[in-house]
Amino acid sequence: MSFVTSSADSLAELARVIESRLPKNGGDPQASYVARLLHKGPDGFLKKIGEEATEVVMAAKDADHGGDKSKIVYEVADLWFHSMIALAHYGLTPADVIAELDRRSGTSGIEEKALRKMQLREEGTA
Amino acid sequence: MSFVTSSADSLAELARVIESRLPKNGGDPQASYVARLLHKGPDGFLKKIGEEATEVVMAAKDADHGGDKSKIVYEVADLWFHSMIALAHYGLTPADVIAELDRRSGTSGIEEKALRKMQLREEGTA
Amino acid sequence: MSFVTSSADSLAELARVIESRLPKNGGDPQASYVARLLHKGPDGFLKKIGEEATEVVMAAKDADHGGDKSKIVYEVADLWFHSMIALAHYGLTPADVIAELDRRSGTSGIEEKALRKMQLREEGTA
Amino acid sequence: MSFVTSSADSLAELARVIESRLPKNGGDPQASYVARLLHKGPDGFLKKIGEEATEVVMAAKDADHGGDKSKIVYEVADLWFHSMIALAHYGLTPADVIAELDRRSGTSGIEEKALRKMQLREEGTA
Repeated sequence: MSFVTSSADSLAELARVIESRLPKNGGDPQASYVARLLHKGPDGFLKKIGEEATEVVMAAKDADHGGDKSKIVYEVADLWFHSMIALAHYGLTPADVIAELDRRSGTSGIEEKALRKMQLREEGTA
Repeated sequence: MSFVTSSADSLAELARVIESRLPKNGGDPQASYVARLLHKGPDGFLKKIGEEATEVVMAAKDADHGGDKSKIVYEVADLWFHSMIALAHYGLTPADVIAELDRRSGTSGIEEKALRKMQLREEGTA
Repeated sequence: MSFVTSSADSLAELARVIESRLPKNGGDPQASYVARLLHKGPDGFLKKIGEEATEVVMAAKDADHGGDKSKIVYEVADLWFHSMIALAHYGLTPADVIAELDRRSGTSGIEEKALRKMQLREEGTA
Repeated sequence: MSFVTSSADSLAELARVIESRLPKNGGDPQASYVARLLHKGPDGFLKKIGEEATEVVMAAKDADHGGDKSKIVYEVADLWFHSMIALAHYGLTPADVIAELDRRSGTSGIEEKALRKMQLREEGTA
Protein backbone atom coordinates (compact mmCIF):
# COMPACT_ATOMS: atom_id res chain seq x y z
CA MET A 1 0.00 0.00 0.00
CA SER A 2 2.93 2.35 0.34
CA PHE A 3 3.76 3.51 -3.13
CA VAL A 4 0.60 4.72 -4.80
CA THR A 5 -1.79 5.77 -2.07
CA SER A 6 -1.82 9.13 -0.37
CA SER A 7 -1.29 9.66 3.33
CA ALA A 8 -5.00 10.03 3.99
CA ASP A 9 -5.51 6.66 2.42
CA SER A 10 -2.77 5.35 4.70
CA LEU A 11 -4.69 6.44 7.80
CA ALA A 12 -7.95 5.09 6.36
CA GLU A 13 -6.26 1.81 5.47
CA LEU A 14 -4.74 1.51 8.95
CA ALA A 15 -8.15 2.29 10.47
CA ARG A 16 -9.64 -0.57 8.44
CA VAL A 17 -6.98 -2.97 9.70
CA ILE A 18 -7.67 -1.90 13.29
CA GLU A 19 -11.43 -2.27 12.80
CA SER A 20 -10.93 -5.80 11.53
CA ARG A 21 -9.36 -6.59 14.91
CA LEU A 22 -12.47 -5.62 16.89
CA PRO A 23 -13.97 -8.53 18.85
CA LYS A 24 -17.22 -8.18 16.86
CA ASN A 25 -15.20 -8.59 13.66
CA GLY A 26 -13.46 -11.70 14.88
CA GLY A 27 -10.15 -10.18 16.00
CA ASP A 28 -8.01 -12.86 17.66
CA PRO A 29 -6.32 -11.72 20.91
CA GLN A 30 -3.77 -14.52 20.57
CA ALA A 31 -2.67 -13.51 17.10
CA SER A 32 -2.90 -9.72 17.10
CA TYR A 33 -1.65 -7.01 19.44
CA VAL A 34 -4.53 -4.73 18.42
CA ALA A 35 -7.12 -7.46 19.00
CA ARG A 36 -5.51 -8.10 22.37
CA LEU A 37 -5.79 -4.44 23.41
CA LEU A 38 -9.35 -4.14 22.10
CA HIS A 39 -10.29 -7.35 23.88
CA LYS A 40 -9.11 -5.93 27.21
CA GLY A 41 -11.58 -3.07 26.87
CA PRO A 42 -11.17 0.70 27.31
CA ASP A 43 -8.92 0.81 30.39
CA GLY A 44 -6.34 -1.28 28.56
CA PHE A 45 -5.93 0.95 25.53
CA LEU A 46 -6.69 4.22 27.33
CA LYS A 47 -3.80 3.80 29.71
CA LYS A 48 -1.59 3.18 26.67
CA ILE A 49 -2.58 6.67 25.44
CA GLY A 50 -1.29 8.14 28.70
CA GLU A 51 1.86 6.07 28.43
CA GLU A 52 2.52 6.90 24.78
CA ALA A 53 1.93 10.62 25.40
CA THR A 54 4.62 10.39 28.09
CA GLU A 55 6.95 8.67 25.63
CA VAL A 56 6.46 11.50 23.12
CA VAL A 57 7.41 13.97 25.85
CA MET A 58 10.51 11.96 26.80
CA ALA A 59 11.65 11.67 23.17
CA ALA A 60 11.17 15.42 22.74
CA LYS A 61 13.16 16.19 25.89
CA ASP A 62 15.93 13.90 24.65
CA ALA A 63 15.92 15.77 21.33
CA ASP A 64 16.17 19.07 23.25
CA HIS A 65 19.38 17.68 24.70
CA GLY A 66 20.83 16.47 21.41
CA GLY A 67 18.99 13.20 20.96
CA ASP A 68 17.72 11.70 17.72
CA LYS A 69 14.61 13.49 16.43
CA SER A 70 13.41 10.42 14.56
CA LYS A 71 12.47 8.99 17.95
CA ILE A 72 9.85 11.74 18.22
CA VAL A 73 8.31 10.62 14.92
CA TYR A 74 8.30 7.06 16.18
CA GLU A 75 6.59 7.95 19.47
CA VAL A 76 4.02 10.27 17.88
CA ALA A 77 3.22 7.39 15.50
CA ASP A 78 2.66 5.17 18.55
CA LEU A 79 0.45 7.83 20.15
CA TRP A 80 -1.66 8.32 17.04
CA PHE A 81 -1.84 4.57 16.50
CA HIS A 82 -3.18 3.95 20.00
CA SER A 83 -5.57 6.91 19.57
CA MET A 84 -6.89 5.11 16.48
CA ILE A 85 -7.43 1.93 18.48
CA ALA A 86 -9.59 3.96 20.87
CA LEU A 87 -11.43 5.59 17.98
CA ALA A 88 -12.19 2.16 16.47
CA HIS A 89 -13.59 0.89 19.77
CA TYR A 90 -16.04 3.79 19.85
CA GLY A 91 -17.02 3.44 16.18
CA LEU A 92 -15.06 6.53 15.19
CA THR A 93 -12.39 7.07 12.53
CA PRO A 94 -9.32 9.22 11.87
CA ALA A 95 -11.42 10.82 9.11
CA ASP A 96 -13.69 12.17 11.88
CA VAL A 97 -10.66 13.67 13.62
CA ILE A 98 -9.31 15.18 10.41
CA ALA A 99 -12.75 16.57 9.60
CA GLU A 100 -12.76 18.25 13.01
CA LEU A 101 -9.27 19.69 12.40
CA ASP A 102 -10.32 20.70 8.91
CA ARG A 103 -13.47 22.35 10.20
CA ARG A 104 -11.43 24.41 12.63
CA SER A 105 -8.69 25.48 10.26
CA GLY A 106 -11.06 26.00 7.34
CA THR A 107 -12.42 28.92 9.26
CA SER A 108 -9.19 29.81 11.02
CA GLY A 109 -11.14 28.29 13.82
CA ILE A 110 -8.29 26.59 15.61
CA GLU A 111 -6.66 29.85 16.43
CA GLU A 112 -9.95 31.52 17.24
CA LYS A 113 -11.18 28.65 19.36
CA ALA A 114 -7.93 28.30 21.24
CA LEU A 115 -7.66 31.99 21.87
CA ARG A 116 -11.27 32.11 23.04
CA LYS A 117 -10.66 29.16 25.36
CA MET A 118 -7.60 30.91 26.74
CA GLN A 119 -9.63 34.08 27.26
CA LEU A 120 -12.37 32.14 29.04
CA ARG A 121 -9.72 30.53 31.20
CA GLU A 122 -8.34 33.96 31.97
CA GLU A 123 -11.78 35.05 33.05
CA GLY A 124 -11.83 32.00 35.28
CA THR A 125 -14.87 30.44 33.69
CA ALA A 126 -13.27 27.58 31.76
CA MET B 1 -9.73 24.51 2.09
CA SER B 2 -12.40 22.07 3.15
CA PHE B 3 -14.23 21.13 0.00
CA VAL B 4 -11.74 19.99 -2.58
CA THR B 5 -8.68 18.74 -0.75
CA SER B 6 -8.25 15.28 0.72
CA SER B 7 -7.68 14.59 4.39
CA ALA B 8 -3.94 14.18 3.89
CA ASP B 9 -3.88 17.59 2.35
CA SER B 10 -5.78 18.81 5.41
CA LEU B 11 -3.03 17.63 7.73
CA ALA B 12 -0.35 19.03 5.42
CA GLU B 13 -2.21 22.33 5.19
CA LEU B 14 -2.60 22.52 8.97
CA ALA B 15 1.10 21.71 9.37
CA ARG B 16 1.92 24.62 7.08
CA VAL B 17 -0.21 26.97 9.15
CA ILE B 18 1.52 25.80 12.33
CA GLU B 19 4.95 26.20 10.74
CA SER B 20 4.10 29.77 9.79
CA ARG B 21 3.63 30.45 13.53
CA LEU B 22 7.19 29.44 14.43
CA PRO B 23 9.22 32.30 15.93
CA LYS B 24 11.71 32.04 13.05
CA ASN B 25 8.82 32.53 10.62
CA GLY B 26 7.54 35.59 12.41
CA GLY B 27 4.71 34.01 14.44
CA ASP B 28 3.19 36.60 16.76
CA PRO B 29 2.56 35.35 20.32
CA GLN B 30 0.03 38.15 20.86
CA ALA B 31 -2.08 37.23 17.86
CA SER B 32 -1.87 33.45 17.68
CA TYR B 33 -2.35 30.65 20.20
CA VAL B 34 0.07 28.44 18.27
CA ALA B 35 2.72 31.16 18.11
CA ARG B 36 2.21 31.68 21.84
CA LEU B 37 2.80 28.00 22.63
CA LEU B 38 5.79 27.77 20.28
CA HIS B 39 7.24 30.94 21.79
CA LYS B 40 7.12 29.38 25.28
CA GLY B 41 9.37 26.56 24.13
CA PRO B 42 9.10 22.77 24.54
CA ASP B 43 7.88 22.55 28.14
CA GLY B 44 4.87 24.68 27.25
CA PHE B 45 3.56 22.55 24.42
CA LEU B 46 4.81 19.22 25.79
CA LYS B 47 2.77 19.54 28.96
CA LYS B 48 -0.24 20.24 26.75
CA ILE B 49 0.32 16.82 25.16
CA GLY B 50 0.06 15.22 28.61
CA GLU B 51 -3.01 17.29 29.39
CA GLU B 52 -4.74 16.58 26.07
CA ALA B 53 -4.02 12.84 26.37
CA THR B 54 -5.76 12.98 29.75
CA GLU B 55 -8.72 14.75 28.17
CA VAL B 56 -9.03 12.01 25.54
CA VAL B 57 -9.12 9.46 28.35
CA MET B 58 -11.78 11.41 30.26
CA ALA B 59 -13.95 11.82 27.16
CA ALA B 60 -13.65 8.09 26.48
CA LYS B 61 -14.60 7.20 30.06
CA ASP B 62 -17.60 9.51 29.80
CA ALA B 63 -18.62 7.76 26.57
CA ASP B 64 -18.30 4.41 28.37
CA HIS B 65 -20.90 5.72 30.76
CA GLY B 66 -23.28 7.03 28.13
CA GLY B 67 -21.64 10.34 27.23
CA ASP B 68 -21.40 11.93 23.81
CA LYS B 69 -18.84 10.20 21.57
CA SER B 70 -18.24 13.33 19.53
CA LYS B 71 -16.32 14.66 22.53
CA ILE B 72 -13.74 11.92 21.89
CA VAL B 73 -13.28 13.16 18.32
CA TYR B 74 -12.87 16.68 19.63
CA GLU B 75 -10.26 15.68 22.22
CA VAL B 76 -8.29 13.42 19.85
CA ALA B 77 -8.24 16.39 17.43
CA ASP B 78 -6.77 18.52 20.23
CA LEU B 79 -4.19 15.80 21.01
CA TRP B 80 -3.12 15.43 17.39
CA PHE B 81 -3.10 19.20 16.95
CA HIS B 82 -0.75 19.71 19.88
CA SER B 83 1.38 16.79 18.65
CA MET B 84 1.70 18.68 15.37
CA ILE B 85 2.84 21.81 17.22
CA ALA B 86 5.61 19.71 18.77
CA LEU B 87 6.49 18.19 15.40
CA ALA B 88 6.77 21.67 13.85
CA HIS B 89 9.10 22.84 16.61
CA TYR B 90 11.45 19.95 15.85
CA GLY B 91 11.28 20.42 12.07
CA LEU B 92 9.09 17.34 11.62
CA THR B 93 5.74 16.88 9.88
CA PRO B 94 2.61 14.74 10.11
CA ALA B 95 3.76 13.23 6.79
CA ASP B 96 6.76 11.81 8.70
CA VAL B 97 4.39 10.24 11.22
CA ILE B 98 2.13 8.83 8.54
CA ALA B 99 5.15 7.47 6.66
CA GLU B 100 6.18 5.68 9.87
CA LEU B 101 2.67 4.24 10.29
CA ASP B 102 2.61 3.35 6.60
CA ARG B 103 5.99 1.66 6.83
CA ARG B 104 4.76 -0.48 9.71
CA SER B 105 1.42 -1.47 8.24
CA GLY B 106 2.78 -1.89 4.72
CA THR B 107 4.64 -4.89 6.03
CA SER B 108 2.08 -5.84 8.67
CA GLY B 109 4.83 -4.48 10.80
CA ILE B 110 2.68 -2.82 13.43
CA GLU B 111 1.30 -6.10 14.63
CA GLU B 112 4.63 -7.84 14.37
CA LYS B 113 6.51 -5.09 16.11
CA ALA B 114 3.98 -4.71 18.88
CA LEU B 115 3.78 -8.43 19.45
CA ARG B 116 7.55 -8.72 19.52
CA LYS B 117 7.77 -5.82 21.98
CA MET B 118 5.18 -7.54 24.16
CA GLN B 119 7.10 -10.79 23.96
CA LEU B 120 10.36 -9.07 24.90
CA ARG B 121 8.54 -7.46 27.82
CA GLU B 122 7.27 -10.87 28.84
CA GLU B 123 10.81 -12.14 28.80
CA GLY B 124 11.69 -9.21 31.05
CA THR B 125 14.19 -7.69 28.66
CA ALA B 126 12.24 -4.69 27.47
CA MET C 1 2.79 24.31 61.44
CA SER C 2 6.25 23.60 60.19
CA PHE C 3 8.42 23.30 63.26
CA VAL C 4 6.87 20.78 65.61
CA THR C 5 4.73 18.47 63.55
CA SER C 6 5.92 15.40 61.71
CA SER C 7 5.65 14.89 57.96
CA ALA C 8 2.54 12.78 58.31
CA ASP C 9 0.95 15.60 60.19
CA SER C 10 1.99 17.88 57.34
CA LEU C 11 0.04 15.82 54.84
CA ALA C 12 -2.93 15.57 57.22
CA GLU C 13 -2.81 19.32 57.83
CA LEU C 14 -2.65 20.04 54.11
CA ALA C 15 -5.55 17.66 53.54
CA ARG C 16 -7.58 19.61 56.10
CA VAL C 17 -6.83 22.88 54.33
CA ILE C 18 -7.89 21.37 51.00
CA GLU C 19 -11.09 19.97 52.53
CA SER C 20 -11.97 23.41 53.88
CA ARG C 21 -11.96 24.61 50.25
CA LEU C 22 -14.67 22.14 49.15
CA PRO C 23 -17.84 23.88 47.90
CA LYS C 24 -19.84 22.19 50.67
CA ASN C 25 -17.44 23.71 53.21
CA GLY C 26 -17.77 27.19 51.77
CA GLY C 27 -14.60 27.32 49.67
CA ASP C 28 -14.51 30.54 47.68
CA PRO C 29 -13.47 30.12 44.02
CA GLN C 30 -12.54 33.79 43.82
CA ALA C 31 -10.17 33.66 46.78
CA SER C 32 -8.60 30.22 46.57
CA TYR C 33 -6.95 28.25 43.78
CA VAL C 34 -8.00 24.97 45.40
CA ALA C 35 -11.62 26.12 45.78
CA ARG C 36 -11.51 27.18 42.14
CA LEU C 37 -10.34 23.77 40.95
CA LEU C 38 -12.81 21.93 43.18
CA HIS C 39 -15.60 24.20 41.97
CA LYS C 40 -14.86 23.24 38.35
CA GLY C 41 -15.49 19.60 39.16
CA PRO C 42 -13.50 16.44 38.37
CA ASP C 43 -12.43 17.18 34.78
CA GLY C 44 -10.73 20.35 35.97
CA PHE C 45 -8.50 18.81 38.60
CA LEU C 46 -8.09 15.43 36.86
CA LYS C 47 -6.53 16.98 33.80
CA LYS C 48 -4.13 18.78 36.15
CA ILE C 49 -2.98 15.34 37.37
CA GLY C 50 -2.12 14.40 33.78
CA GLU C 51 -0.37 17.72 33.29
CA GLU C 52 1.58 17.55 36.56
CA ALA C 53 2.68 13.97 35.86
CA THR C 54 4.06 15.24 32.55
CA GLU C 55 5.90 18.01 34.39
CA VAL C 56 7.51 15.47 36.72
CA VAL C 57 8.70 13.54 33.67
CA MET C 58 10.11 16.69 32.04
CA ALA C 59 11.92 17.74 35.22
CA ALA C 60 13.40 14.24 35.50
CA LYS C 61 14.56 14.26 31.88
CA ASP C 62 16.15 17.66 32.43
CA ALA C 63 17.94 16.25 35.49
CA ASP C 64 19.16 13.34 33.36
CA HIS C 65 20.80 15.93 31.18
CA GLY C 66 22.37 17.92 33.99
CA GLY C 67 19.41 19.98 35.18
CA ASP C 68 18.54 20.93 38.74
CA LYS C 69 17.14 18.00 40.72
CA SER C 70 15.21 20.28 43.06
CA LYS C 71 12.81 20.86 40.17
CA ILE C 72 11.82 17.20 40.46
CA VAL C 73 10.92 17.71 44.12
CA TYR C 74 8.90 20.75 43.17
CA GLU C 75 6.97 18.93 40.43
CA VAL C 76 6.34 15.79 42.52
CA ALA C 77 4.98 18.13 45.21
CA ASP C 78 2.62 19.61 42.61
CA LEU C 79 1.58 16.10 41.49
CA TRP C 80 0.90 14.92 45.05
CA PHE C 81 -0.87 18.18 45.86
CA HIS C 82 -3.26 17.83 42.93
CA SER C 83 -3.76 14.14 43.79
CA MET C 84 -4.84 15.33 47.24
CA ILE C 85 -7.35 17.74 45.70
CA ALA C 86 -8.87 14.78 43.87
CA LEU C 87 -8.85 12.68 47.05
CA ALA C 88 -10.68 15.45 48.93
CA HIS C 89 -13.35 15.68 46.26
CA TYR C 90 -14.07 11.97 46.65
CA GLY C 91 -14.05 12.08 50.46
CA LEU C 92 -10.66 10.34 50.65
CA THR C 93 -7.45 11.31 52.42
CA PRO C 94 -3.68 10.90 52.03
CA ALA C 95 -3.93 8.70 55.15
CA ASP C 96 -5.96 6.25 53.03
CA VAL C 97 -3.20 6.24 50.42
CA ILE C 98 -0.47 5.76 53.01
CA ALA C 99 -2.47 2.97 54.65
CA GLU C 100 -2.64 1.25 51.26
CA LEU C 101 1.13 1.66 50.77
CA ASP C 102 1.69 0.53 54.34
CA ARG C 103 -0.53 -2.50 53.85
CA ARG C 104 1.48 -3.52 50.81
CA SER C 105 4.93 -2.98 52.24
CA GLY C 106 4.01 -4.36 55.66
CA THR C 107 3.72 -7.72 53.99
CA SER C 108 6.38 -7.10 51.37
CA GLY C 109 3.23 -6.92 49.33
CA ILE C 110 4.32 -4.20 46.96
CA GLU C 111 6.99 -6.35 45.45
CA GLU C 112 4.81 -9.42 45.46
CA LYS C 113 1.82 -7.63 44.01
CA ALA C 114 3.84 -5.88 41.33
CA LEU C 115 5.64 -9.05 40.36
CA ARG C 116 2.36 -10.96 40.24
CA LYS C 117 0.81 -8.22 38.06
CA MET C 118 3.81 -8.41 35.76
CA GLN C 119 3.50 -12.17 35.60
CA LEU C 120 -0.21 -11.95 34.81
CA ARG C 121 0.64 -9.44 32.09
CA GLU C 122 3.21 -11.81 30.73
CA GLU C 123 0.56 -14.50 30.59
CA GLY C 124 -1.57 -12.04 28.68
CA THR C 125 -4.40 -12.01 31.19
CA ALA C 126 -3.89 -8.60 32.73
CA MET D 1 5.55 -2.11 60.56
CA SER D 2 1.92 -1.13 60.44
CA PHE D 3 0.83 -0.85 64.03
CA VAL D 4 3.26 1.41 65.83
CA THR D 5 4.75 3.73 63.27
CA SER D 6 3.15 6.89 61.95
CA SER D 7 2.32 7.51 58.33
CA ALA D 8 5.41 9.62 57.83
CA ASP D 9 7.47 6.73 59.04
CA SER D 10 5.58 4.55 56.57
CA LEU D 11 6.70 6.71 53.67
CA ALA D 12 10.25 6.88 55.03
CA GLU D 13 10.29 3.12 55.53
CA LEU D 14 9.00 2.51 52.01
CA ALA D 15 11.62 4.94 50.66
CA ARG D 16 14.32 2.91 52.43
CA VAL D 17 13.03 -0.31 50.85
CA ILE D 18 13.06 1.32 47.42
CA GLU D 19 16.57 2.69 47.96
CA SER D 20 17.79 -0.79 48.85
CA ARG D 21 16.69 -1.87 45.36
CA LEU D 22 18.94 0.64 43.58
CA PRO D 23 21.57 -1.04 41.37
CA LYS D 24 24.33 0.56 43.46
CA ASN D 25 22.81 -1.06 46.55
CA GLY D 26 22.67 -4.49 44.96
CA GLY D 27 19.01 -4.56 43.93
CA ASP D 28 18.30 -7.73 41.95
CA PRO D 29 16.18 -7.17 38.79
CA GLN D 30 15.24 -10.85 38.77
CA ALA D 31 13.87 -10.83 42.31
CA SER D 32 12.33 -7.40 42.69
CA TYR D 33 9.91 -5.34 40.61
CA VAL D 34 11.43 -2.10 41.95
CA ALA D 35 14.98 -3.26 41.15
CA ARG D 36 13.77 -4.21 37.70
CA LEU D 37 12.31 -0.75 37.03
CA LEU D 38 15.36 1.02 38.46
CA HIS D 39 17.64 -1.19 36.39
CA LYS D 40 15.85 -0.13 33.20
CA GLY D 41 16.72 3.50 33.88
CA PRO D 42 14.59 6.68 33.84
CA ASP D 43 12.48 6.05 30.73
CA GLY D 44 11.20 2.83 32.28
CA PHE D 45 9.90 4.29 35.51
CA LEU D 46 9.00 7.71 34.09
CA LYS D 47 6.57 6.25 31.60
CA LYS D 48 4.98 4.38 34.50
CA ILE D 49 4.27 7.77 36.11
CA GLY D 50 2.37 8.81 32.99
CA GLU D 51 0.54 5.50 32.95
CA GLU D 52 -0.34 5.55 36.66
CA ALA D 53 -1.56 9.16 36.44
CA THR D 54 -3.90 7.99 33.68
CA GLU D 55 -5.11 5.15 35.88
CA VAL D 56 -5.92 7.61 38.69
CA VAL D 57 -7.97 9.62 36.19
CA MET D 58 -9.82 6.52 34.97
CA ALA D 59 -10.60 5.37 38.51
CA ALA D 60 -11.90 8.84 39.35
CA LYS D 61 -14.10 8.93 36.24
CA ASP D 62 -15.46 5.50 37.16
CA ALA D 63 -16.24 6.80 40.64
CA ASP D 64 -18.05 9.78 39.08
CA HIS D 65 -20.27 7.24 37.41
CA GLY D 66 -20.92 5.16 40.52
CA GLY D 67 -17.75 3.08 40.68
CA ASP D 68 -15.84 2.02 43.77
CA LYS D 69 -13.90 4.90 45.33
CA SER D 70 -11.37 2.56 46.90
CA LYS D 71 -9.95 2.08 43.40
CA ILE D 72 -8.91 5.74 43.48
CA VAL D 73 -6.95 5.11 46.68
CA TYR D 74 -5.32 2.12 45.07
CA GLU D 75 -4.31 4.04 41.93
CA VAL D 76 -3.06 7.11 43.82
CA ALA D 77 -0.95 4.69 45.91
CA ASP D 78 0.50 3.31 42.66
CA LEU D 79 1.17 6.84 41.41
CA TRP D 80 2.90 7.93 44.61
CA PHE D 81 4.82 4.65 44.76
CA HIS D 82 6.20 5.10 41.25
CA SER D 83 6.97 8.75 42.04
CA MET D 84 9.03 7.46 44.96
CA ILE D 85 10.94 5.12 42.66
CA ALA D 86 11.85 8.15 40.54
CA LEU D 87 12.81 10.13 43.64
CA ALA D 88 15.10 7.31 44.79
CA HIS D 89 16.85 7.18 41.42
CA TYR D 90 17.67 10.89 41.70
CA GLY D 91 18.79 10.65 45.33
CA LEU D 92 15.64 12.36 46.59
CA THR D 93 13.10 11.33 49.23
CA PRO D 94 9.40 11.74 50.03
CA ALA D 95 10.59 13.84 52.99
CA ASP D 96 11.90 16.37 50.43
CA VAL D 97 8.48 16.46 48.78
CA ILE D 98 6.67 16.83 52.09
CA ALA D 99 9.10 19.58 53.13
CA GLU D 100 8.23 21.39 49.91
CA LEU D 101 4.49 20.99 50.57
CA ASP D 102 5.04 22.02 54.17
CA ARG D 103 7.03 25.05 53.13
CA ARG D 104 4.19 26.18 50.88
CA SER D 105 1.33 25.60 53.27
CA GLY D 106 3.25 26.87 56.27
CA THR D 107 3.04 30.29 54.70
CA SER D 108 -0.28 29.73 52.96
CA GLY D 109 2.09 29.62 50.07
CA ILE D 110 0.33 26.98 48.04
CA GLU D 111 -2.68 29.17 47.54
CA GLU D 112 -0.61 32.26 46.98
CA LYS D 113 1.76 30.58 44.59
CA ALA D 114 -1.01 28.89 42.62
CA LEU D 115 -3.04 32.06 42.39
CA ARG D 116 0.00 34.04 41.31
CA LYS D 117 0.80 31.42 38.65
CA MET D 118 -2.78 31.59 37.44
CA GLN D 119 -2.60 35.37 37.32
CA LEU D 120 0.65 35.25 35.37
CA ARG D 121 -0.99 32.78 32.98
CA GLU D 122 -3.92 35.13 32.62
CA GLU D 123 -1.50 37.88 31.72
CA GLY D 124 -0.08 35.51 29.15
CA THR D 125 3.41 35.51 30.57
CA ALA D 126 3.52 32.04 32.11
